[in-house]
Amino acid sequence: MMPQPTNDCLLRALRHEHVEVTPIWMMRQAGRYLPEYRKVREQVGGFMDLCRTPDLACEVTLQPLRRFPLDAAILFSDILTVPDAMGLGLHFVEGEGPRFERPLQSAKDIEALGVPDPEQDLRYVMDTVRLIRHELAGRVPLIGFSGSPWTLATYMLEGQSSRDFRVTKTWIYNHPEAVHALLNVLTEAVSLYLLAQIRAGAQALMLFDTWGGILTPKDYRAFSLAPMERIVRSLKAHDPSVPVILFTKGGGAWLEAMAAVGCDALSLDWTTDLSTARARVCGKVALQGNLDPSVLYASPAVIRTQAAEVLAAYGAGSGHVFNLGHGIHPDVPPEHVATLVEAVHDLSRIYHL
Amino acid sequence: MMPQPTNDCLLRALRHEHVEVTPIWMMRQAGRYLPEYRKVREQVGGFMDLCRTPDLACEVTLQPLRRFPLDAAILFSDILTVPDAMGLGLHFVEGEGPRFERPLQSAKDIEALGVPDPEQDLRYVMDTVRLIRHELAGRVPLIGFSGSPWTLATYMLEGQSSRDFRVTKTWIYNHPEAVHALLNVLTEAVSLYLLAQIRAGAQALMLFDTWGGILTPKDYRAFSLAPMERIVRSLKAHDPSVPVILFTKGGGAWLEAMAAVGCDALSLDWTTDLSTARARVCGKVALQGNLDPSVLYASPAVIRTQAAEVLAAYGAGSGHVFNLGHGIHPDVPPEHVATLVEAVHDLSRIYHL
Repeated sequence: MMPQPTNDCLLRALRHEHVEVTPIWMMRQAGRYLPEYRKVREQVGGFMDLCRTPDLACEVTLQPLRRFPLDAAILFSDILTVPDAMGLGLHFVEGEGPRFERPLQSAKDIEALGVPDPEQDLRYVMDTVRLIRHELAGRVPLIGFSGSPWTLATYMLEGQSSRDFRVTKTWIYNHPEAVHALLNVLTEAVSLYLLAQIRAGAQALMLFDTWGGILTPKDYRAFSLAPMERIVRSLKAHDPSVPVILFTKGGGAWLEAMAAVGCDALSLDWTTDLSTARARVCGKVALQGNLDPSVLYASPAVIRTQAAEVLAAYGAGSGHVFNLGHGIHPDVPPEHVATLVEAVHDLSRIYHL
Repeated sequence: MMPQPTNDCLLRALRHEHVEVTPIWMMRQAGRYLPEYRKVREQVGGFMDLCRTPDLACEVTLQPLRRFPLDAAILFSDILTVPDAMGLGLHFVEGEGPRFERPLQSAKDIEALGVPDPEQDLRYVMDTVRLIRHELAGRVPLIGFSGSPWTLATYMLEGQSSRDFRVTKTWIYNHPEAVHALLNVLTEAVSLYLLAQIRAGAQALMLFDTWGGILTPKDYRAFSLAPMERIVRSLKAHDPSVPVILFTKGGGAWLEAMAAVGCDALSLDWTTDLSTARARVCGKVALQGNLDPSVLYASPAVIRTQAAEVLAAYGAGSGHVFNLGHGIHPDVPPEHVATLVEAVHDLSRIYHL
């Protein structure tokens, strides 16, 4: 039996239950903006070495929680661990983001892909989850995650991030059946991976769909949302109590469709107003977000005002998890993050009387 | 008296008048994907030298019209000519996009900005418009354009394109009044610039708001849409017969607000479905778009199918101008463009019976 969290504000908000304050955590809350993170990072060779060393990955996961009264921890890892375990060779080029050494080049490459066994092939992630959960000792819940099948597929086909996704787009327009085959393998692999994270101790899960927003509405449903729906259904069939959060960056137009796939919450970037979003999803799901991460460059007074606007946009009642609309920028001052966390807890009380 | 266009299909579609086929033109239709463009480009030093030489700018404007039966010409120029005329020093770094030599660094820099006289300081653009209009001899209408004040402001503050717009965001959060002062000068400058283009012969105008989509809904209205509205009102007060098209990339969430500023048409990227968009704007404006430019990487058969889907999404009746959802990619085969233009003319007849 693992201990239940003392501060379960996040889980209650995701279930629309009463909370005293709006919970807050931040995408990439463990990261380069913290000097103590940079120190650990310098001790290891590359970013993936940090992810692959459970002791250190656990340490950096806990760092932001020592500084700020955050309401959740999130596993320190990468969205692309699954294709790495499939043999594509993930590595990071400083300042340029992720790269695969062996991107997919043909339908044969897709057919040859196997589904990784999480406890074998991604053991370092499972060990990290177990370790963090133990070290947290129930103080706050632990969030696990993966990239969405569509987002994984774009990196696997392009080999890296892209401006126009020429390779991926040519595949989906000329060979949609091959892309569906790839998404099918990834859907199975991500489902097993997230189930294993639950078994290892993750208490909530998030699917990061970084590149769903580059698609037409019809292609978004077919290539990005449908695989995510299959994953959510599979997770819920196994354990309906673990909340699942979907995040499609640039997906503000598709909230109704996203809210209908059986997930518990949608994470929103800052281009959608929370009051509009709340009306559109009709209470079906909780909402997470959505402060522009660049607000953390502004002065503390402005940070408070902008946080107040996000809280007011959601309004009274439970079902809101405060977050940034995307990952925290690596060069924001940690004191600005402290200001934000304090402001959210302070200013949100009136919405939960 | 300048001759009226023989093919005025574009202007009729923008006025919701009957057309026989859906008109088509493409953003960046004059550009690097054409070998004859690359040949002219090699004769001059840089991209801006081409823009500043009316003979050559006119020549490349006309090149795509010799290959394809397009329904409009668009002035060959850049969206950033106005801040260049304000003294910021526009230049292009190969493969990296536009740069300003002297970006704005303080509120004093903003106060020091003057409004350029288009016939003096941007004479090369006006001469190009006059020359193209003469050379077209009324075959198709000529579209003039500018970047939106907000988009110009981001480049003037950052000095170049940006991933996270740190400088601009810090300005709007910490010194919104200075940004409004900058937008006021730009609004006046762009209004005068577009009015001068009308006087020189432009028969339709388009405002390119490349970076409105990085803002929150509230900031979009204040910093991007409000200045565009002032420009549209000013143009319409001068000559209500010249149609004005607004394009905010990533602005699909805000169509209702955009349709209310007095413009004639909205240009859409491919993340919004034309049938949904048409229902949302209630016939107030025409719609332009919105094929994913990456479709031009696909096979001719797929290009036809995808074009058919865009036409079917808009449906029967006038008010649709076919276009890409963004500029044409520089490496698409010209024959694929020929396929698209033919498909649009061919497949759209049934919607205009």
